[in-house]
Amino acid sequence: MMPDPQGDMPPEEFREEGRRLVDWLTDYFQWSLDNPVLSRLRPGAIRAALPADAPEEGEAFERILEDFDRVLVPGLTQWNHPGYFAYFPCGFSTPGALADFLSTAVSQQAMLWRTSPAATELEEVVLAWLRQALGLPEEFEGVIYDTASTAVVHALATARHARAPEVRTHGLAGRGPGAFRVYCSEHAHSSVDKAVITLGLGHDNLRRIPADAEYRLRPDLLAAAIEEDRRAGHLPLAVVATVGTTSVTSVDPVPSIAELCARENLWLHVDAAYAGAAAILPECRWAIDGMDRADSFVVNPHKWMFTPFDLSAFYCRRMDLLRAAFGLTPEYLKTSETSEVRNLMDTGFQLGRRFRALKLWVVMRYFGLQGIRTRLREHLRLARLFADWVDRDPGFERVAPVPFSVVCFRAVPRGVGERGGEALNAFNERLLNALNDTGEVFLSHTSLGGRYVIRLAVGNIRTTEVEIRRAWDRLRGLADELQRGSTPPSVPPRASRSGGSGT
Amino acid sequence: MMPDPQGDMPPEEFREEGRRLVDWLTDYFQWSLDNPVLSRLRPGAIRAALPADAPEEGEAFERILEDFDRVLVPGLTQWNHPGYFAYFPCGFSTPGALADFLSTAVSQQAMLWRTSPAATELEEVVLAWLRQALGLPEEFEGVIYDTASTAVVHALATARHARAPEVRTHGLAGRGPGAFRVYCSEHAHSSVDKAVITLGLGHDNLRRIPADAEYRLRPDLLAAAIEEDRRAGHLPLAVVATVGTTSVTSVDPVPSIAELCARENLWLHVDAAYAGAAAILPECRWAIDGMDRADSFVVNPHKWMFTPFDLSAFYCRRMDLLRAAFGLTPEYLKTSETSEVRNLMDTGFQLGRRFRALKLWVVMRYFGLQGIRTRLREHLRLARLFADWVDRDPGFERVAPVPFSVVCFRAVPRGVGERGGEALNAFNERLLNALNDTGEVFLSHTSLGGRYVIRLAVGNIRTTEVEIRRAWDRLRGLADELQRGSTPPSVPPRASRSGGSGT
Repeated sequence: MMPDPQGDMPPEEFREEGRRLVDWLTDYFQWSLDNPVLSRLRPGAIRAALPADAPEEGEAFERILEDFDRVLVPGLTQWNHPGYFAYFPCGFSTPGALADFLSTAVSQQAMLWRTSPAATELEEVVLAWLRQALGLPEEFEGVIYDTASTAVVHALATARHARAPEVRTHGLAGRGPGAFRVYCSEHAHSSVDKAVITLGLGHDNLRRIPADAEYRLRPDLLAAAIEEDRRAGHLPLAVVATVGTTSVTSVDPVPSIAELCARENLWLHVDAAYAGAAAILPECRWAIDGMDRADSFVVNPHKWMFTPFDLSAFYCRRMDLLRAAFGLTPEYLKTSETSEVRNLMDTGFQLGRRFRALKLWVVMRYFGLQGIRTRLREHLRLARLFADWVDRDPGFERVAPVPFSVVCFRAVPRGVGERGGEALNAFNERLLNALNDTGEVFLSHTSLGGRYVIRLAVGNIRTTEVEIRRAWDRLRGLADELQRGSTPPSVPPRASRSGGSGT
Repeated sequence: MMPDPQGDMPPEEFREEGRRLVDWLTDYFQWSLDNPVLSRLRPGAIRAALPADAPEEGEAFERILEDFDRVLVPGLTQWNHPGYFAYFPCGFSTPGALADFLSTAVSQQAMLWRTSPAATELEEVVLAWLRQALGLPEEFEGVIYDTASTAVVHALATARHARAPEVRTHGLAGRGPGAFRVYCSEHAHSSVDKAVITLGLGHDNLRRIPADAEYRLRPDLLAAAIEEDRRAGHLPLAVVATVGTTSVTSVDPVPSIAELCARENLWLHVDAAYAGAAAILPECRWAIDGMDRADSFVVNPHKWMFTPFDLSAFYCRRMDLLRAAFGLTPEYLKTSETSEVRNLMDTGFQLGRRFRALKLWVVMRYFGLQGIRTRLREHLRLARLFADWVDRDPGFERVAPVPFSVVCFRAVPRGVGERGGEALNAFNERLLNALNDTGEVFLSHTSLGGRYVIRLAVGNIRTTEVEIRRAWDRLRGLADELQRGSTPPSVPPRASRSGGSGT
């Protein structure tokens, strides 16, 4: 069918194409299990396969979906594959995806209460649900952002406003010699660097504090850095503590840091983007110890709570200060309800916002808290199982504790150089590449004290013991082959779903 | 069906619930035509109708959808209703919504080329399509952000980096007395204010330059302000010109401003969030005159190009500088392809990003450039038609030119105070409230030179002459009633779709 020359896709065509898409996806989810996790395309292949100009005439939706299948599917890195163990897996689930479709289709833009009472109030309700489920203090008010990167920009901007409200008006320039200083562990996420750069605080004014042997920020060195900075005339402003660092999921000692922040009058932002979700389990509640004294907190249900990307839940003890830092209502956005309602545009620099709360609401209802706990516990169990295999094999070593669902390890085959040497690093890099080339799994790496380290991160809702065991079997086999000097077997090219030749 | 205790929703349940959702939406799009555009709920109604805690046990998807229908649908402000004329309408279309569902379902997170070759390369392709369709200079490289608010933060941060790269490292504090100054028209969007606040430049250092009688920034006054600032020891940094201001869709004289910026070495960012789309029409290409000398540009296909929220297309002549301002790759994100590919995480402070390019690709293919032009032309025609009715009626007056699809006007009934007086403003405010209370349409207001002004913004893909005429007929009728002192008829409460009692 061709589109109506004036309006939208006709309703019956929407029904037909919508059903076709649902059927396609049902097949895709099954098909994807037997196809490579990491795309095998070469850079530029998709660009080369698509026309350089937009078409003049409209095309049938069915034909566009065929092109998606033929040209783009081979270029998907399958974040929702059960063998996806890289970075932090995404919190995908199909009920969450249906909810996201619903939120797109009802087309809400919740800048003001008036422009979407449903999105505004559901956000409040569902963030209260999540706060209670995690055991966060009731004083925290929440707001949904896209990512934890945006959350830390807002956290540090609020810290800046709390300390020096005149910066909003006059800016940071000309304030005299003392610079605001922000502190985090050497293992904190790069989004903290980007936030201090964005806010004009300067990258040099982020001090990364060394961690202990288990990769946790050392409060004694933090205290020393703050004292040193004060003596040098700097202005200590805020600390970003991490619950679940990106490399090794270590947990900074938030209670000690909180005490120090209280004493020194520093803002404490807790980045629990990945591991915060674990606090839904009573046995992991320790992970958010000290939150009663933190100022702000972020957790990403799109990481480990089965909520499709993007949904970052930010909580702040002083949302009034955040509003004071960013609030600004031009005439055209003034509404008669202003005094009695929350207008989400006041909680950040982004005016427009999607109806993200809906997918978290659906996920929490569809699985229930019990269902979420069951799945997180299974992920913890799988990670410990993998860690045990590593620990029992003399050809491998684990390089960090496993508090959650991420295992950091490396191969240590006999005769491949010194521990810590370049030869061993090169061996592990080749091993990881060979493993990812199988297409069965996708793992990523990090670097710890000069060591090239492989990470296995469990978090995909479809992951079972089968994929964990497959990853382990393949790792051992490939390590043997690499040590014997044989080339790992080459992998067949990825087939397109329609059986054609891909791009 | 209850969820599998370990995994995702089972495939056949996904198929069934997906089809149910598609059917529900097909009905909803039809049902919504006969139901209020602006939600009639009172603040707090949704919050009160929902439980305070998340459920422990999982629930059937069908039951959650029923609750959505019963509790949340009455709280939707219908952005995709053909009678939606407020603010700028959203660029909704159902093929775009299907594409967004597809992008959610394949769960791409395009921080690195490797984590989604498809999303990374399709973004490049579709932004090249859009650049050509709008006639933007080829030197512009594009990136997709969520909103124009995020775009202007990045534009001004890049301007800051171009002028003073040491700010990235050392911050703005302690730079001495001169402050960076940013300029925009008095009619520029509030996101510019929020950007200078966020970046630490200070709200006082944004100078809003008076506009001429047609609401366009006056280059002579801009030149004078820059000179005055230089004399005072400030550091003029950037100008934000607007193509299609939020209140009246006026177009700042970009060619003159660009010349001034070149002479004064200022960054020129052009905010064409709404009206940029018009450049796809040869007869409106004038709107982007001067772009050959601008440094950055933003247009939101989610405003007026039938692309569901959110998708903001940002173009920059010096994307290398933007990357230098924000680029930073921690060890765990280093990949072997780094030198040959574009990693989208380098183009801003947000690490994660959705696969937004897909919906724009589908919209441009499904409608084709011709189909998009036909629809935009119809919107221009409808706005001019409405403007003509206003012009011919002595009880109304138009208060601004109509270069695009927005008409600014007010009622000027005999005997209701002076033109410019409070009584006339109060009359128009009552008139707008009465009009919106009908539920048939939703218009918003602005303030121009002390006058309360009603805005009719055409942009919804389903809007036809029927809704335009209905808005006009209702306006005239209600103005008559208000003038005669009679109360406008009360409106029936909104019914839920299931015929129940709403919340």
